[in-house]
Amino acid sequence: MLQLVKIEPSSLADYASLVGEEEIESIRSLGRSLKGLRVLHLSATAYGGGVAEILARLVPLMRDAGIMAEWRIIYGSDEFFNVTKTLHNALQGADVALDEGRRAVYERFSALNAEAFDGEYDVVVVHDPQPAAVPALRERKGARRWIWRCHIDTSHANLGVWSYLKSFLLPYDAAIFTLPQYVPADSPFPRLSFIPPSIDPLAAKNSPLDRAEASRVLARLHVDPNRPLLLQVARFDPWKDPLGVIDSYRMVKIEVPTVQLVLAGSMATDDPEGWDYYERTLRHAGADYDIRVLHNLHGVGDLEINALQTLADVVIQKSTREGFGLSVSEALWKGTPVVAGDVGGIPLQVIEGETGYLVTGPLACAERVYSLLRQPELRSALGTRGREHVRQRFLITRHLKDYLELFGSLLTPSPTDPGKERLQ
Amino acid sequence: MLQLVKIEPSSLADYASLVGEEEIESIRSLGRSLKGLRVLHLSATAYGGGVAEILARLVPLMRDAGIMAEWRIIYGSDEFFNVTKTLHNALQGADVALDEGRRAVYERFSALNAEAFDGEYDVVVVHDPQPAAVPALRERKGARRWIWRCHIDTSHANLGVWSYLKSFLLPYDAAIFTLPQYVPADSPFPRLSFIPPSIDPLAAKNSPLDRAEASRVLARLHVDPNRPLLLQVARFDPWKDPLGVIDSYRMVKIEVPTVQLVLAGSMATDDPEGWDYYERTLRHAGADYDIRVLHNLHGVGDLEINALQTLADVVIQKSTREGFGLSVSEALWKGTPVVAGDVGGIPLQVIEGETGYLVTGPLACAERVYSLLRQPELRSALGTRGREHVRQRFLITRHLKDYLELFGSLLTPSPTDPGKERLQ
Repeated sequence: MLQLVKIEPSSLADYASLVGEEEIESIRSLGRSLKGLRVLHLSATAYGGGVAEILARLVPLMRDAGIMAEWRIIYGSDEFFNVTKTLHNALQGADVALDEGRRAVYERFSALNAEAFDGEYDVVVVHDPQPAAVPALRERKGARRWIWRCHIDTSHANLGVWSYLKSFLLPYDAAIFTLPQYVPADSPFPRLSFIPPSIDPLAAKNSPLDRAEASRVLARLHVDPNRPLLLQVARFDPWKDPLGVIDSYRMVKIEVPTVQLVLAGSMATDDPEGWDYYERTLRHAGADYDIRVLHNLHGVGDLEINALQTLADVVIQKSTREGFGLSVSEALWKGTPVVAGDVGGIPLQVIEGETGYLVTGPLACAERVYSLLRQPELRSALGTRGREHVRQRFLITRHLKDYLELFGSLLTPSPTDPGKERLQ
Repeated sequence: MLQLVKIEPSSLADYASLVGEEEIESIRSLGRSLKGLRVLHLSATAYGGGVAEILARLVPLMRDAGIMAEWRIIYGSDEFFNVTKTLHNALQGADVALDEGRRAVYERFSALNAEAFDGEYDVVVVHDPQPAAVPALRERKGARRWIWRCHIDTSHANLGVWSYLKSFLLPYDAAIFTLPQYVPADSPFPRLSFIPPSIDPLAAKNSPLDRAEASRVLARLHVDPNRPLLLQVARFDPWKDPLGVIDSYRMVKIEVPTVQLVLAGSMATDDPEGWDYYERTLRHAGADYDIRVLHNLHGVGDLEINALQTLADVVIQKSTREGFGLSVSEALWKGTPVVAGDVGGIPLQVIEGETGYLVTGPLACAERVYSLLRQPELRSALGTRGREHVRQRFLITRHLKDYLELFGSLLTPSPTDPGKERLQ
């Protein structure tokens, strides 16, 4: 028996005031057409990482919509998770190989998890590579439809490792990718679906914060709530270009000497390399303490990020490579305009001149930021449109709806659906 | 029953080649005179922190010497350990109060631990404030002699908190402090003993490292083993003056452009304030990557510290306030001369002109360092004497001997020993 993850109940009704009664009713109606559908989400861990964060919020809402949704996690050892970490990195394009020994570890634990799999489901959604081999090793037994949900940008996947993994992906009826450009060239899936991620407007990071309370939070972080504030929320790595953000800030500061910059990111204590770019960022900031460099080990959590995004005059996301960049939606949801790199999922969120600006170099970034700092009405107009854009496209209710629509279409196959024949 | 800490056996014989057969025989002879003595070490935790590190090495050697030594730890909750952390800070001089609520927590857990105490001992050594109230709350039952081992510099203890703690310290027969200057003015103890800490020459941090192997470790840390190297191993806080060390290094670098500086310290993930000075250090280092700032979350552990101390040309310990500063002994043990602040336990280890130099400001520090860099024979002479000094005074065998001598003198009281009357 695979371990069941306990779910805190949650209610769609709580979202009605944000997305409208009509949207909630349309979700409920989809749910009624699938009433009692037995759905399993299968993933690697119950805590830590974006996938667990999404499932913890999505599964309860799926249940509230009438689906018999459960969430289970696979068994693994340190050794297994080291192998799947390599697998993950290779799918993102790292130049690493999966030797015989590592493949044996992956297959041994996959067989164990295939054996531990129990019960009968209508749909099983398998998240990411760690549990991906389970349906192949069970010869599809235990579910009518198998979906592989890939949260990774596999557009530049290491070919050797991808071709190894692909041998286990053949039994799937469908795959979900975040964006069309993430799909590898030789995708083996009979059906593809594209579902971007989402933010939960009721989570601590995104719920409305009183401006006075937010100001107090900023003061505790030694950020002056009464001076202009630029913010980037991102890991400290070269693809987020924190050094370029500092360069842009310095150009702006020549014109606006009171401007402040906060760079906030999360640090993993088990990732020695992660420290390197954090250190470079601090050294590049040097003696300028109007640049604050913050992370979770300082005690910066959801409330602090919320307060910073709420009170920032401009949010920057100067990525040169990006998965989806959900922190852009988080900022827009708070009515803050965003100046960001034109990569990955960012252009879906930042609509040029509407919700923010797309830039490449530090100078272009500085120009847009400076121009926004000088025009409060423009900031406010972009912010209002940004919030509305996120409300329509990137809230968890839309995410849930996409899943329900996919389940429906997979279970009422058209005559040309190759998945159907295979099931006979 | 208080929880027993499992001990890995260890043998005095293994130290004979380092401290001499004669010294081992003198310890064994002391052990024979106390054969079968029932000794309990009582402390707060089995892992983490200097006290646990010392006991894990000292208790097995005490057993090998013939003492029936055990080590047990007290029960506690997060709440209790938060209170004792405040107590600890106050004893070091912090301006904090222990209100009624916190005192109640301390007393509730102390009563619980006094109740859980079981067995009959000849001597119980109680380490630091966390378990300190146990003998008072048992009315001394369970042991013939109670010793309080204070590992803290209590010379500037907060008076209110000290006077509260003192009310529980009256039943002790003796106290051990690290240095005479650590004893508070109104010590309540009938007997005082002074035992400095020690290093274990067989621990991974101190065992001999092949220079080629040490060079490979340095290269992995991006330190060039072929260029002059300065090193400070210390927490990042104002009392260790890492900014002053960087200033000294910069003065030296004008004369010796190839010189490198490594600042290595450990970071606690649960101490937000600890990050502040680490950040200041990096910002002060700025773009000079000949300064390496390393910590445990980078994967810098015992082996790396050993390699750095082994290959450094000069070790600096520019403290402005210091408990004992055992990393000075660690460096001297590797034959590396030390330039250090004249505070705390440092002058016991750094003998002026013999094993290193005592300094105050950055310029004096730079002068001594520069002069040592220019004189390899002097470095070598100081290093040789430093190792011999540590061999005689700061190895774990000396530490063990001090304990055994104290046990002996406490159990064969002189006619004037006030401890005796109290026992009648």
